[in-house]
Amino acid sequence: MNQLLLRAARHRSPQWTSQRFLVTKNAIPDPMTGELMPPTPDIQPNLLQIKRNANPKTPPPAQSLVFGRTFTDHMLAIPWDAVSGWGVPEIKPYGPLEMEPSATVLHYAQTLFEGMKAYRDEHGKVTLFRPDMNMKRMNNSAQRLALPTFNGDALLDLIKRLISLDRHWIPKEPGHSLYVRPTLIGTQKAIGVGPPNEALLFVILSPVGPYYASGFKPVALYGTTEFVRAAPGGTGAYKLGVNYAPGVLPQKSVAALGYSQNLWLHGPDHELTEVGTMNMFVVFKTADGGLELVTPPLDGMILPGVTRDSVLTLAREHISGVKQLPELSDKLVVSERTVTMKEVKAAEKAGTLVEMFGAGTAAVISPVNRIGYMGEDVHIPTGEDGMGPVSRPIWTELVGRQWGKIPSDWSVSID
Amino acid sequence: MNQLLLRAARHRSPQWTSQRFLVTKNAIPDPMTGELMPPTPDIQPNLLQIKRNANPKTPPPAQSLVFGRTFTDHMLAIPWDAVSGWGVPEIKPYGPLEMEPSATVLHYAQTLFEGMKAYRDEHGKVTLFRPDMNMKRMNNSAQRLALPTFNGDALLDLIKRLISLDRHWIPKEPGHSLYVRPTLIGTQKAIGVGPPNEALLFVILSPVGPYYASGFKPVALYGTTEFVRAAPGGTGAYKLGVNYAPGVLPQKSVAALGYSQNLWLHGPDHELTEVGTMNMFVVFKTADGGLELVTPPLDGMILPGVTRDSVLTLAREHISGVKQLPELSDKLVVSERTVTMKEVKAAEKAGTLVEMFGAGTAAVISPVNRIGYMGEDVHIPTGEDGMGPVSRPIWTELVGRQWGKIPSDWSVSID
Repeated sequence: MNQLLLRAARHRSPQWTSQRFLVTKNAIPDPMTGELMPPTPDIQPNLLQIKRNANPKTPPPAQSLVFGRTFTDHMLAIPWDAVSGWGVPEIKPYGPLEMEPSATVLHYAQTLFEGMKAYRDEHGKVTLFRPDMNMKRMNNSAQRLALPTFNGDALLDLIKRLISLDRHWIPKEPGHSLYVRPTLIGTQKAIGVGPPNEALLFVILSPVGPYYASGFKPVALYGTTEFVRAAPGGTGAYKLGVNYAPGVLPQKSVAALGYSQNLWLHGPDHELTEVGTMNMFVVFKTADGGLELVTPPLDGMILPGVTRDSVLTLAREHISGVKQLPELSDKLVVSERTVTMKEVKAAEKAGTLVEMFGAGTAAVISPVNRIGYMGEDVHIPTGEDGMGPVSRPIWTELVGRQWGKIPSDWSVSID
Repeated sequence: MNQLLLRAARHRSPQWTSQRFLVTKNAIPDPMTGELMPPTPDIQPNLLQIKRNANPKTPPPAQSLVFGRTFTDHMLAIPWDAVSGWGVPEIKPYGPLEMEPSATVLHYAQTLFEGMKAYRDEHGKVTLFRPDMNMKRMNNSAQRLALPTFNGDALLDLIKRLISLDRHWIPKEPGHSLYVRPTLIGTQKAIGVGPPNEALLFVILSPVGPYYASGFKPVALYGTTEFVRAAPGGTGAYKLGVNYAPGVLPQKSVAALGYSQNLWLHGPDHELTEVGTMNMFVVFKTADGGLELVTPPLDGMILPGVTRDSVLTLAREHISGVKQLPELSDKLVVSERTVTMKEVKAAEKAGTLVEMFGAGTAAVISPVNRIGYMGEDVHIPTGEDGMGPVSRPIWTELVGRQWGKIPSDWSVSID
């Protein structure tokens, strides 16, 4: 935990504490500041109210889907306020929110979100992939913005109910899924900057097609030093809205130069951090003829991605023998360490640059074939299928687990 | 301009350009990327539609006002979309906005804003203070977020109409004013990350009391190295929502330790950058017995504040003889330069630390008397009235101009 927060947590104001004890005898210390907080109700799935959509839509043809533009018939909404805590959860028809013009989310960007997918297997069973990771990360994000935290299992329970109601929206076509977007916003009706006394958690669902409809298509990145996605002491390690809006202009700028995404480089040594809105991996040939799979460490600037963690876990389970992956080298090492553009360029020259890829919920694995850097292009090998010798077997195992073809406890049934 | 944007602007894709020319023959280059954009209508004040509030409220007693919690009877709203450009401006009853749950502002923090005040002088004349600066900065912010830009004079014209309609909301009590909050948000109904194809500009008004109701009250700051407000290559120089939400937790943390605000320190040398949500100034005694007024330079991390610029301009006009300020030293120099905590601590020891203050629209000048830094407190002199020998005469001139007691072209009538 951050030193400043630790210091704050150790500190107590006796005067203020005694005032608060007049209000409640069951005060609990705020995990971040040590302030004693009156206990307020957590999310209570048993209070769920369901208002069915009287005019359900017909899901559009799967081929017509564009990412994130189509939403299902229902949404989940749970209000929160500082006095009453989490209120009655409601599943209701998808539709506009009424929002005061003074709501803090509209002025000060008090918003955080998650992205996860619901998959339907060939037997019709609907599952989520490691949703506990999303619930945990969402709570970390909430703490960072001084928004209310909650019981992740309770929210997950309600999300499952929502998905179950709209399960017919998951397209039957291969590679399709239902994108699940939980969002938490500050809605205090006042334009002072501070922890909001009102918030709203809502969840919407969007049927989506496969990211790569016809095989993998490696992308070209622009090694960006002019803009940053994150900085030490900043919010890069949390899934907050504030990490996204500033990236649009840099993306537009590199697109005009013929590149797909920004490769965010950090510091004087141009350390590789993330790719667009994905975590990133690079593979080097080692001196003894083996392979090293490298990703930047979780140093406070890197989003702790679920796909990132899954790639690392599968590679480590392969190495340790927990589960060996077909066609993946035995001489593999996994490193969470800093990697610089100097190292990548040197590896290109030496012929030891094996592959590079982004990792995230939307694309799963996104191979890279080129980096525009300081006026020249660094070329990265890709196989005929667009992938490489490490990403290919890991991707196969990963999507196998996501789609329920390979049984694993990462796959959580919604029923 | 950023090198990456310059490069993008020089680049043209002939194929794409010719496609766009099929759509419009009057394409104009996007100032940031060089993309040819079809011209769409700017904000048109002559199209203004006014829908008066049928149930106007009685403004509450001035003493009861809390910053940013009370709003007037009307608001201004101007919709924008990528195809039609800026739409019909509307002044209408203050009330909730209908917002799709997928609106990009709620997920990706596509929001920027301005803060300005309308003052009523003793003759009843209502003025704004240097509003052209706010309009210019708002356009810079819009460019940075890939949100639509607009004619600042046209928006200002409409803001004056709104203020005029609700002018009776400006409290008559001394030191009170009307806080004006223009906000621009991305409202595209899709959860892909990109430049929004829909946006909404709205302006709300809030009657406010004086920041210091009974004389200046110097504040204690915590020199923060654990969190950052801004970083090189980031968005600190723009008035975006994303610069505010992440500051709430650090503020809460230092409040628990008995400090009012964060003094945001940057880099290994702990350079002073900003104070809470204000620009900052420090005054040193110079070797020749004069005074040096120092503020950090606009290096991309510092917000170009209107109050900051006003303080600098008044000090420079005093030095150059354009307008000498009573009781301000003749031996004054003004520096926009880096200042570190090492320098501040050394000055405290040497007895050459004269004063320190924050500067912003809400408080105008906010004196500082203490900085908690690396486990000890740095003490900063303040006069009996809470101010210092530089801030006092500058504040007097500044508020004189704001309240119309001292005529100047910074004061712009709304009529």
